[in-house]
Parts: sequence; C-alpha cells; structure tokens
Amino acid sequence: MSSSLALSQQIQFLKEIDQLKSVVRKSPLIDQSRKENSAEHSWHLAMYALILKDTADEPINVERVIKMLLIHDIVEIDAGDHPIHETSDNSVQEATEQAAADRIFGLLPTEQGIELKSLWYEFEAAESADARFAKSLDRLQPLVHNIETQGGTWVEGKVSKEQVTSRYGSVISKGSKALWQVASKWVESHFSNR
Amino acid sequence: MSSSLALSQQIQFLKEIDQLKSVVRKSPLIDQSRKENSAEHSWHLAMYALILKDTADEPINVERVIKMLLIHDIVEIDAGDHPIHETSDNSVQEATEQAAADRIFGLLPTEQGIELKSLWYEFEAAESADARFAKSLDRLQPLVHNIETQGGTWVEGKVSKEQVTSRYGSVISKGSKALWQVASKWVESHFSNR
Repeated sequence: MSSSLALSQQIQFLKEIDQLKSVVRKSPLIDQSRKENSAEHSWHLAMYALILKDTADEPINVERVIKMLLIHDIVEIDAGDHPIHETSDNSVQEATEQAAADRIFGLLPTEQGIELKSLWYEFEAAESADARFAKSLDRLQPLVHNIETQGGTWVEGKVSKEQVTSRYGSVISKGSKALWQVASKWVESHFSNR
Repeated sequence: MSSSLALSQQIQFLKEIDQLKSVVRKSPLIDQSRKENSAEHSWHLAMYALILKDTADEPINVERVIKMLLIHDIVEIDAGDHPIHETSDNSVQEATEQAAADRIFGLLPTEQGIELKSLWYEFEAAESADARFAKSLDRLQPLVHNIETQGGTWVEGKVSKEQVTSRYGSVISKGSKALWQVASKWVESHFSNR
C-alpha cells in the first residue's frame, strides 16, 4: 500500500508524462497520415519486445526490456527528440537528457524514481544484454516504417544505403543478428529499387 | 530463434498494429490539444501499472498486467473504440471484438497468437486479480484526464456525479480500494465546484 504522499507523487508523475504524447518524431506512421509521437512509439516498441523476444542473441529478461522501452523516451518531454540522422553536440544533448531524467523521475517517491532512472541509464549505456536488445528494437521499428513508406525519413534526409547500414545495422546487429539479417535484405531491396 | 516464417508473421503483426495509433478515443490529452489515441493510451496505462502496482488490493503479477494493458485495445483496430458513456448493443460489440481478436492475433505464429488472445480474454472477463487491476487502471486514467480538463468527456456527455461514481467507481474499486478512495475525492470536489 502506498502512503498518501507517495500516491500523490505517483499521480503527479503520471500526469506529467502525458506530455510525451506531444513529442513528435521524424518517423511517419505506416499509413503516412502523420508523424509518430514518442508515447505511441514507446507502446509500439514494448510490443516489438513482447513479440520478438526470441530473436535476441543473448538471454534477456523480456519484462525488463519492456519496462526499459516504456520509459526510454520520457526524457524527451524536456530534451526533445533527436533523430538518428541529425548531427548535434552529443555532450550538450547528454547533459540536457540527464537533467530531464533528474527532474521527471525525481517527481516519483525517492526509491521508485531511482529505480527507473537507473533503468533509463542502463538503456542509454547499452552495455547489458537487455539494453542491447532494447536499443536494437528502437532502431528496427523506424527502419520498418521507412521501408513501408518508400523511404520515409531517408528520402527527406537524403540518406544513403551505406549510412542506413552503418546507423541502423550497427545497433540492430548488436542485439539480434537474426533481425539485422532480415532487415538488411529489406534495405538492400529498397535501395536497389530506387 | 524464430523460424523465418514465424519472424515474417511477427513483423506483419507489428506493422498491422500500427493502426492502433489512428483509433481516436473520446478522452482529451491533459493539455487539451487533441483527443488521445488508443496506442498512446495503452502506453500510458502500462506506465500506470508500473508506477501504481503497490496499490492493488490483491497480489498481482505486474509484468502480466503490463502485457495485458499493452494489448487490451488492439481489437479496436477493427472494432473501434466504445466509450464508457455510450450505450450500444453489447452482444454485437462483443462478437465484433472477438472476430477482431481472431483476425489480428491470428496473424501471429499459432502458439503466440493463442497466448495473447487468451490474455486479452482474461482482461475482458475481469475475473483474475491481474485483470481486475488492469481494468481499474483503464478506468482511472480517463478519470484523471477528465478531472484535469474541467470535466472533459463528462461535460460533453452531460454525465452526473452519480453516473461517474457508478461507471468508474465500480470498476476502479474492484482492483484498488486505495485508488478509488483518492479518485472519489477528486470526483466529489470536481462536481461540488461546478
């Protein structure tokens, strides 16, 4: 049973993160009706983990991967979305995201806030098997959307096959060679038809 | 490791459920910029479960509750959203949703499809502790949004305090008396200020 103060902090956090629904990403929905937002993207990635769990190269805890993906973009409420193909000052970006994590997870009761922030750091570091698989799905999903929308953000950003292979392949293949094996075929076929 | 056929079915399912992002609910975002869609709503509910797990009356498996909430609205891709305050023919609605579950979960490899469909039926039946808690969060979240937006769908639908107490309270209190205890105070205060 939560204390009354804890419950009120938890509800405050849950109201605050409603804003993730207004963070618009570069990626289109598959029907191209609009760009995707980071909240529905997080839902989709949690579903990717649930469905594709057996494709991970290493033993993973799928429940931890799902939790990681549910929270992985929450810092964007303060720090904004930073697309793969955008060059920016990484150290400034990192500092902004860390401040965002401090503020937003800091709304929660102390212990719970620390637990989620540490899960977010684990995702960012991409050093555990769970985080590597989570990162790999976070790259795979926009790749699928780009393939399904005749190039999506790749067309907009004039991204080459070599850049896709390097920017997506390097991350996807670290979590799942099986997923990169099929995805690299889609990439090959996509660029050979252009 | 998934077989090549299984993986292709799984990817097809993950593309198909992108459509849940285009199912628009009655509930507003807290900033009132637009209505919420069912994909971002599902993400939000999974976060509610993760954050509020200790408020459940009975012992629950939070990971199962999260999975249940991630998939609970997927049938709406075919069957549409049916708001709490809308009267409709329940048996027709049930049949439509069951056909949707057959079709959409049927895209998956057989065993995985059966597993998720059975989790969805468990949610719908609301007879297990996990499902009761999931249902209670599914009622709490739109209540929070209505309170935060000076009445939201209650104003639009001319819904009375007694109707809110009956339609939300009955479901929330079956999963968590603690959550209904605080939510009923918000409801009381909301209607006394109108």
